[in-house]
Amino acid sequence: MKKSRIAMLATLMMTLPALAMAEDVPVSEMSYILNTFSFLIMGVLVMWMAAGFGMLESGLVRSKNVATICLKNISLFGIAGILFYLTGYNLMYAGVDGGFVGSFGLWAADDAAALAGDYSSGYAAASDWFFQMVFCGAACSIVSGCVAERIKLWSFLLFCAILCGIIYPIQGSWGWGGGWLSEMGFVDFAGSTIVHSVGGWAALTGAIILGARKGKYGKGGRVNPMPGSNIPMATLGTFILWMGWYGFNGGSVLALGDAASAISMSNVMVNTNMAACGGMIAAMAMVQILYKKVDVTMALNGALAGLVSITAGPDSPSLGAAVLIGAVGGVLVVLAVPFFDKLKIDDVVGALSVHLVCGIWGTMAVPFTNGEASFLTQFIGVAATALFVLATSAVVWLAIKYTVGLRCSEEDEYRGLDLSEIGMEAYPDFQTVHLGGMGSPASSYAGAPAAARAATSPVRQN
Amino acid sequence: MKKSRIAMLATLMMTLPALAMAEDVPVSEMSYILNTFSFLIMGVLVMWMAAGFGMLESGLVRSKNVATICLKNISLFGIAGILFYLTGYNLMYAGVDGGFVGSFGLWAADDAAALAGDYSSGYAAASDWFFQMVFCGAACSIVSGCVAERIKLWSFLLFCAILCGIIYPIQGSWGWGGGWLSEMGFVDFAGSTIVHSVGGWAALTGAIILGARKGKYGKGGRVNPMPGSNIPMATLGTFILWMGWYGFNGGSVLALGDAASAISMSNVMVNTNMAACGGMIAAMAMVQILYKKVDVTMALNGALAGLVSITAGPDSPSLGAAVLIGAVGGVLVVLAVPFFDKLKIDDVVGALSVHLVCGIWGTMAVPFTNGEASFLTQFIGVAATALFVLATSAVVWLAIKYTVGLRCSEEDEYRGLDLSEIGMEAYPDFQTVHLGGMGSPASSYAGAPAAARAATSPVRQN
Amino acid sequence: MKKSRIAMLATLMMTLPALAMAEDVPVSEMSYILNTFSFLIMGVLVMWMAAGFGMLESGLVRSKNVATICLKNISLFGIAGILFYLTGYNLMYAGVDGGFVGSFGLWAADDAAALAGDYSSGYAAASDWFFQMVFCGAACSIVSGCVAERIKLWSFLLFCAILCGIIYPIQGSWGWGGGWLSEMGFVDFAGSTIVHSVGGWAALTGAIILGARKGKYGKGGRVNPMPGSNIPMATLGTFILWMGWYGFNGGSVLALGDAASAISMSNVMVNTNMAACGGMIAAMAMVQILYKKVDVTMALNGALAGLVSITAGPDSPSLGAAVLIGAVGGVLVVLAVPFFDKLKIDDVVGALSVHLVCGIWGTMAVPFTNGEASFLTQFIGVAATALFVLATSAVVWLAIKYTVGLRCSEEDEYRGLDLSEIGMEAYPDFQTVHLGGMGSPASSYAGAPAAARAATSPVRQN
Repeated sequence: MKKSRIAMLATLMMTLPALAMAEDVPVSEMSYILNTFSFLIMGVLVMWMAAGFGMLESGLVRSKNVATICLKNISLFGIAGILFYLTGYNLMYAGVDGGFVGSFGLWAADDAAALAGDYSSGYAAASDWFFQMVFCGAACSIVSGCVAERIKLWSFLLFCAILCGIIYPIQGSWGWGGGWLSEMGFVDFAGSTIVHSVGGWAALTGAIILGARKGKYGKGGRVNPMPGSNIPMATLGTFILWMGWYGFNGGSVLALGDAASAISMSNVMVNTNMAACGGMIAAMAMVQILYKKVDVTMALNGALAGLVSITAGPDSPSLGAAVLIGAVGGVLVVLAVPFFDKLKIDDVVGALSVHLVCGIWGTMAVPFTNGEASFLTQFIGVAATALFVLATSAVVWLAIKYTVGLRCSEEDEYRGLDLSEIGMEAYPDFQTVHLGGMGSPASSYAGAPAAARAATSPVRQN
Repeated sequence: MKKSRIAMLATLMMTLPALAMAEDVPVSEMSYILNTFSFLIMGVLVMWMAAGFGMLESGLVRSKNVATICLKNISLFGIAGILFYLTGYNLMYAGVDGGFVGSFGLWAADDAAALAGDYSSGYAAASDWFFQMVFCGAACSIVSGCVAERIKLWSFLLFCAILCGIIYPIQGSWGWGGGWLSEMGFVDFAGSTIVHSVGGWAALTGAIILGARKGKYGKGGRVNPMPGSNIPMATLGTFILWMGWYGFNGGSVLALGDAASAISMSNVMVNTNMAACGGMIAAMAMVQILYKKVDVTMALNGALAGLVSITAGPDSPSLGAAVLIGAVGGVLVVLAVPFFDKLKIDDVVGALSVHLVCGIWGTMAVPFTNGEASFLTQFIGVAATALFVLATSAVVWLAIKYTVGLRCSEEDEYRGLDLSEIGMEAYPDFQTVHLGGMGSPASSYAGAPAAARAATSPVRQN
Repeated sequence: MKKSRIAMLATLMMTLPALAMAEDVPVSEMSYILNTFSFLIMGVLVMWMAAGFGMLESGLVRSKNVATICLKNISLFGIAGILFYLTGYNLMYAGVDGGFVGSFGLWAADDAAALAGDYSSGYAAASDWFFQMVFCGAACSIVSGCVAERIKLWSFLLFCAILCGIIYPIQGSWGWGGGWLSEMGFVDFAGSTIVHSVGGWAALTGAIILGARKGKYGKGGRVNPMPGSNIPMATLGTFILWMGWYGFNGGSVLALGDAASAISMSNVMVNTNMAACGGMIAAMAMVQILYKKVDVTMALNGALAGLVSITAGPDSPSLGAAVLIGAVGGVLVVLAVPFFDKLKIDDVVGALSVHLVCGIWGTMAVPFTNGEASFLTQFIGVAATALFVLATSAVVWLAIKYTVGLRCSEEDEYRGLDLSEIGMEAYPDFQTVHLGGMGSPASSYAGAPAAARAATSPVRQN
């Protein structure tokens, strides 16, 4: 249960007969401050991941769609904040009590007890709200990269609002809000399932309902590369995500006010780092072996794959096990990218391969190092989340499609969303190359087989 | 009074007769450490805003002036550090005593008492200096964007030195150094007036004295767009500023060593976030309604407008009120950008609309949610700051203009400051587009009416 | 001795006869938590420097080598993590005991004592590992910029593995692991020698063994400029490094759990900032005087020079002295860049001038402000590190050269490493300029004499 180990303990103590009292769970003022400060600082790192996703995606789309993806990434974070205030937090955390959903209503901080000297809540209410809100934003960010380059701006933002305000918090209540999954013993420390695969499932339905970008898939199974326009930006985005993940996982210890929590936070952050290392190196090695050349976007996605993979259980593995868990994620991402292309599911930045596939893997891997988790319960959590998010997100995507519309016109897609959706170019001073409009006729896909792509694409050699 | 709630309390206690002693204000070693660490970490976040301004501005100027704006942004931060050490800190905080200015002289840390076990100062001296210094840097950063693309490098840096070393600290002493404004009850929690509108007023006089960029304003009130060259960079800059603002406002609680401060910091950071959300969404909606298309730079400026608006009083509103305060800022910025253009005041990045207009709005909005603030006192603070900064900055700008010169030659402006001022291009490998040299003849201005601009500008459609 | 002031004190106490016991060094739970949290947060800032190096270097190489340098920078950080786990940490810190190297083996956290309530270790084991690991990554990052644009990807990464796993930790054990240098009284607070000049010496041998880029040095001592392709990225990288350095030096206090440490951390961070200011302003002034125009890359390198210069002793100077120490570094870097070019040692980003030259200067400058350091001992430390790293790194570079090969083919270098090594372009949508392939025939070098370069280079005037 993510929300509060301390609150849970307090509840536990209060259910004991007679002599258990609030004083039995002494949370000193200093512990209260440290718990609070940890939520705030780690929350800032997680907020920073919104920028990371933004830069990663702005580097991986074509130049004609860059300004739009920038706008989507920053505005979805604004929407996440507002919706998590309006409905999200309380649906996820208020009175779930072993059930399927919390209560409906605006969130407001209540720190009266702490201000009166009773620190048993463990932390300032707003610090917890902040930390949970930024996670909600991350789920949205995952969707934006997958459905980029063809979705209408406002339609996308409308979906984000529903994801943040309803879908994400309801399923989140099951595992983190004290709902039925947490009572079963489902373990998802920082959200391989609850954040990453949720974003992944929502992105999957979106990508299927939207369809592929024009020109992405040619005759005879040909996959046309549509290479990202700015690799340093994508690299910066990955560095930002890696940095932010220390807060994502480290902050999910949910406490800093006792030595055991500080030790756990240290182990979590180190394991998080090791999984990223493992995922990146494994992906680089795989690509080198399969395609005889390393691919920088695969290395980036490999690091992210490792990070997603460790997120369900970064507190229990040794460093070596963390490297392995991440490395499996790195291998999976290299295999998943062409797999989704074979299915003609057009995932612009590889979000499904990273967040969905490795989110599942990471959740299922928890029992290997955590004796309290069972494969069956982990599977139930993965499957229940899949069913719920697939169903609800499909309904929402379709409802948007048949009302305000989801996909921009073919002409707009050809010109680029920057001109058609926001009337502005990302790089107006620069002369850009017309790569065959809807994608060059090379026989490989953007991402993995870069060696092949380079050999066939009409690039300038300077 | 920003400098020190704790120090003020200590002073208060000491003025009590007889039995008041230092021991009456027990600041334990742990509180002392937490206060100090908060200043340091939050100060690092505020320092990071210097990079945010740099990236925002480098994305919003034309490619021929990018290297120069990068250099200005990083070097002004260096100048702020040195001047705040030479004169700034002591002018702002040393012995102001209800007056109009502190004392003159180098700053040096004195932690002898704390090292001897007396923690009543509340925090390490250098941590406070660091936190105050980075605020001084922020004021300079605001100026640089407004006067970009036509000011000489060294002349600009000379102005920065005087702003950081004299103008900013003197007015800062009034409200934060224990000067006359703080004694009147003026409330400016983290600097809507003391930082943002100070930067805004200094930028305003600079923009007027410099004049507009050649070609910006055509015949018959035509405003020629000069679109920014790198939207992802501008977006990154905004994300950085948003992130840094958690420290800007959160750190301005000035303490973390007691639970009440930790609670306040949490509320402040959440409200800061909500105002950014409100400002961004409101600006996007306004632009959509007015111009039928969203504009990414308006969304970015909307978020910043929300942040500036909440900065004078992020501790008192509810989340909903914070959204509204920010949203008003977002609306204001959409109206202010064409307003300044109508006045032919050429503000390259919208700094006046964001920092000056919303700085005033935010300061005047404090009494809505904070019963201790009065509209009259807030107005006096705004007006006094305006008069002082307008007068002093105008004198300095004019003195520079008539001695070493302020504006580069028309030919240099045409070639771009990168070649004329620093003999270097920002993007030497890239072929860039010659957009009519002094601005294209389109009928709209850069920023808001992007829809109109896109329709008329000779852009490539790829 | 960097590893642990607290552990050393504990050891000291235990060597006292009879009455000295663990309880004599009371490290309370709160201190333990604060020490741990400081390692974690400051470590995150140092990790962020890996991104800073990445962005700095991606901005300073030509566009045809940008994707490769991005990949190198992120993958070296992954390799650093794995190698520091496999061998690095224990070679550096396990049982060095005044000697020349620690022990060989995997690192694993042991927090059993603390979990049982004995906090005398001072901090969670993994937090210390994390903080030390990110320093190891920084040493590698220094190398990558110097040898860029001509080295093979996997050969470079192989060198990094050996640097991180063997060379860096062995020399690091001397000064920070309790080895012979620390017993002599060698002072290197945060690594002017142990990190920066180590990276510098390894880069120097690499640059010599690799040779200069084709076309860099022409007939008659002509130095052809090969200007960096993206100045905002380089500026962002410098801002990131400046920000990260607060953690690099501030975290190297190695404690936060007592007021004296918090005070020291504050002074260290302020001095770090002042040295960066001094270095940047001095470099700008020098370039203006020597070449009549400021150079943005020199300003960036000046800031970094100041940061490297203060790193050996940021705890002892006054603010003014810190400015001076940094300023000398800024002057040195302006002189060193043409010096290395005169020697035809081709250092793409100025890493030798910044990290090696100023690393030596900073280490030798410690006795000026720190009475416990002696010039002789500092010199011995510098010289011993030089000899060891020069010898070992030369052996490794040569072994790689004569086995798998070190340098890519002339044709690959001409086409750019992005196409030849990773089959991908950094900016595939943008039309780029062919600047004479191997460097334009201008008579100046990239970096300092930008004024001269601009006058002769065939740039477009837009």
